[in-house]
Amino acid sequence: MREVAVVAAGMTRFGELWELSLRDLFVEAAAEALHNANADHVDDIFIGNMSGGQFVGQEHLGPLMADQLGMSGVAATRVESACASGGAALRQGFVAVASGMSDLVLATGVEKMTDGADVTNVLATAADQENEVYHGITFPGLYALIARAYMEAHGTTEEDLAWVAVKNHRHGAMNPKAQFRREIEVDDVLQSTMVASPLRMLHCSPVSDGAAAVLLCPLDQAAKYTDKPVKIVGSGMATGPMALADRDDPAVLDAVGKSAARAYEMAGVSPESIQVAEVHDCFSIAEVCCIEALGFVCAGEGGQAARGGVTALGGRIPVNTSGGLKSKGHPVGATGVAQAIEIFEQLRGEAGARQVEGARLGLTQNMGGSGASSVVHIFEGV
Amino acid sequence: MREVAVVAAGMTRFGELWELSLRDLFVEAAAEALHNANADHVDDIFIGNMSGGQFVGQEHLGPLMADQLGMSGVAATRVESACASGGAALRQGFVAVASGMSDLVLATGVEKMTDGADVTNVLATAADQENEVYHGITFPGLYALIARAYMEAHGTTEEDLAWVAVKNHRHGAMNPKAQFRREIEVDDVLQSTMVASPLRMLHCSPVSDGAAAVLLCPLDQAAKYTDKPVKIVGSGMATGPMALADRDDPAVLDAVGKSAARAYEMAGVSPESIQVAEVHDCFSIAEVCCIEALGFVCAGEGGQAARGGVTALGGRIPVNTSGGLKSKGHPVGATGVAQAIEIFEQLRGEAGARQVEGARLGLTQNMGGSGASSVVHIFEGV
Repeated sequence: MREVAVVAAGMTRFGELWELSLRDLFVEAAAEALHNANADHVDDIFIGNMSGGQFVGQEHLGPLMADQLGMSGVAATRVESACASGGAALRQGFVAVASGMSDLVLATGVEKMTDGADVTNVLATAADQENEVYHGITFPGLYALIARAYMEAHGTTEEDLAWVAVKNHRHGAMNPKAQFRREIEVDDVLQSTMVASPLRMLHCSPVSDGAAAVLLCPLDQAAKYTDKPVKIVGSGMATGPMALADRDDPAVLDAVGKSAARAYEMAGVSPESIQVAEVHDCFSIAEVCCIEALGFVCAGEGGQAARGGVTALGGRIPVNTSGGLKSKGHPVGATGVAQAIEIFEQLRGEAGARQVEGARLGLTQNMGGSGASSVVHIFEGV
Repeated sequence: MREVAVVAAGMTRFGELWELSLRDLFVEAAAEALHNANADHVDDIFIGNMSGGQFVGQEHLGPLMADQLGMSGVAATRVESACASGGAALRQGFVAVASGMSDLVLATGVEKMTDGADVTNVLATAADQENEVYHGITFPGLYALIARAYMEAHGTTEEDLAWVAVKNHRHGAMNPKAQFRREIEVDDVLQSTMVASPLRMLHCSPVSDGAAAVLLCPLDQAAKYTDKPVKIVGSGMATGPMALADRDDPAVLDAVGKSAARAYEMAGVSPESIQVAEVHDCFSIAEVCCIEALGFVCAGEGGQAARGGVTALGGRIPVNTSGGLKSKGHPVGATGVAQAIEIFEQLRGEAGARQVEGARLGLTQNMGGSGASSVVHIFEGV
């Protein structure tokens, strides 16, 4: 396989962007990535999108978005793995370039969630309809069950979990693209509205619109587009049991562990060598479980990591310097690509106030549903 | 890139399968493919599906289907390009094997359309919502406009178009998996209910449930699974303008022409060398336009091809020996993979009464929407 580099990125701000449609969002992000590489054409487009059909009545985003971008004719494919759709699109873009099928690829993600759809029920179509959703549960409920199982096993408190949100808001306050650019305190979290016990509103990522795009090419062609390429050195994808009831321990995310193991193996690195990571914190408990599955902390220690500063900027392994899904926002199909953009900027030394000094190796982890699918990528600055 | 072979196939019958759910359909087809190869595990699964979310309230098919198949853990990704979703999944499976990322891949397609959803409106989400659908048009209307433009340009009659359906029903009557196993006559078509002038009910493919799966591996590993592998020697995907109004001529399908040109170039063959083809006949006019774009007949001659026997079994280039979408059925996400299965059987000499004698080179063409996306594969018997 050929070595693959990220050579440019583009991203809308995330938020309730009432004035922008699904296609507007896509074009803004994709055109920015092309502009930054001084490129006007690609061979192939991959579009991560969870549910254009349910959110805004639009499937078939491949030709629509190629058309909107003035590139009708190119290959273009929508890829879906619920909230891991962006990571899955990045992976397909990586394989397209690595294989030799395509020389210049846009890997993108987009979601328009604030157009009147019943968001909670649309998101629930990422869980097992027959065995979970028909019985009345939605995603806050599924993650609340995970949180209860974790807290029971490890003595973790609601305050410990609150620190994940506090940390990510501190990071996101420094990110001009973030939906919520303000710091919050532990008391704010603990006094916010209960959604599904023990998860309160400020434990939950928001409903967001947004799009993100990266431009990929073979490493040996990267100089045409940038003098600071970032290599993709590992790509791992895995699935796990769809329904919580089918898991040995609901708080142990098999798909995350397996996807990470595959990416580490491909990259030839271990968790200890990762210097900055974007991790799927759709709920505070998710970040806790994921940093354990990724090997950043030992089992049972995830609950203390944010509170103890381990995962904060300046800590041993800074997690979600972008603000994460909690503060930056979570337009579900776009999230996996936006994670890659944060790492791209970190490894180029362009993350401003959020910069992890000297970062050369970074990781993204993007998750679908209650953890049934996960995609991990490892990036190396050149 | 590595050479890629199809080594096994599995497929449900197509039809109104009230007793089978989305997951039942998938498992039946995938398990049959695995059984036929004596395989019990794969590295990667690609699932073509247009709209599980809108049809049955289920997105995130990757982990769900891996799980249902007893393979939780493997990589699994849903791929969507409207009615070309199956072809797009086959293409991603091909690239996964060709690249070296995966050694054994299930490329599948599935759709459950008869579960109470408003099928016409769900299918319409494959067209341009803002510029077409909001103004009231649905797919029969879009293809009726294409048919009118074609008939006006070439003097083709409603009777000429009826011959496409008559031919495909003659073929499908010999296919045990087909939804409609009965022959029809030209008068049946011309007397059937008008749907969108000039297209009558028997010009239109039906609403169907079904699933199809093929197993792919590197050619040099094929002997582990079969003594009759079929090589994939070309894969082309392309897009064209989404809205009919944006096309120079609505009856000239740019995406089909470009996807075919790319596949022919990769395979190093010309249209004249193709001996059997499965072509996207969602409406009779679609087959007419596609066989021209594929180079099987000259521009303007497509309208006479079925009537003249050119595309019938025994003709110069037999098209849709399976019965096509019209007679075999059209569970949209499954169609592209089912097309590959017909060619797989033809090139192995296993098509029974539908066999094209001595066929060694075959082609599939799978189309999304009103032609805005198209995927072409070329297969060679070994």
